[in-house]
Amino acid sequence: MTDYNVYDETCPTRIVLDRLADKWTFLILDRLAAGPVRFNQLKREIGGISQKVLSRTLKGLERDGLLLRRTFATRPVTVEYSLTPLARSLSDTIAAFVHWAERNIDAVEAAQARYDEAATDSS
Amino acid sequence: MTDYNVYDETCPTRIVLDRLADKWTFLILDRLAAGPVRFNQLKREIGGISQKVLSRTLKGLERDGLLLRRTFATRPVTVEYSLTPLARSLSDTIAAFVHWAERNIDAVEAAQARYDEAATDSS
Repeated sequence: MTDYNVYDETCPTRIVLDRLADKWTFLILDRLAAGPVRFNQLKREIGGISQKVLSRTLKGLERDGLLLRRTFATRPVTVEYSLTPLARSLSDTIAAFVHWAERNIDAVEAAQARYDEAATDSS
Repeated sequence: MTDYNVYDETCPTRIVLDRLADKWTFLILDRLAAGPVRFNQLKREIGGISQKVLSRTLKGLERDGLLLRRTFATRPVTVEYSLTPLARSLSDTIAAFVHWAERNIDAVEAAQARYDEAATDSS
């Protein structure tokens, strides 16, 4: 077995970390944890994402083996995405991370106010 | 209590997610989980990070209340960083995420090869 080390910039694991450690990736994978979602619905529900960034991120995640893409012969064609078992092994971690921000925003904002006040006092 | 929603692009939690969902943030917080580390040691151990990006990321995390910065009156001055209790509440999640890439890189690379082969076949 090869020894992988994400701290080594030439290790392939760093490339994977680089792509996954992205807010859009987190929001997409978290949104799909409850079940398959159509492209247009993802675009509507993830505030601020552009069609281009959503398409590119979904394609990268499909290539990495994290998403399954299904098309349905409706008019217009419907495209639906769902998590693979590989992505499911990351779901709890993604959910914990995404929702940490919601649970701890008050503490973060209080820390920012203290930091900015100290910076003002010393200037 | 305010209802925070990270899917809403105007929610302050989205700003926090945007800053945290970054490979350098992940590698720094993961490296500090075992105890305080000096600036120069972080720079040496996190392959590929520049002094500028490391300084900026550390400063942002300090302002968010995730890092403590201590200086020691050595010559030259030594600067050491450690996690706050707030950051410690995120440590297990960060470690799970960073090391997921190391555990699953073989599956990801196999998926990429399948995807690229299918793309070649259909072109």
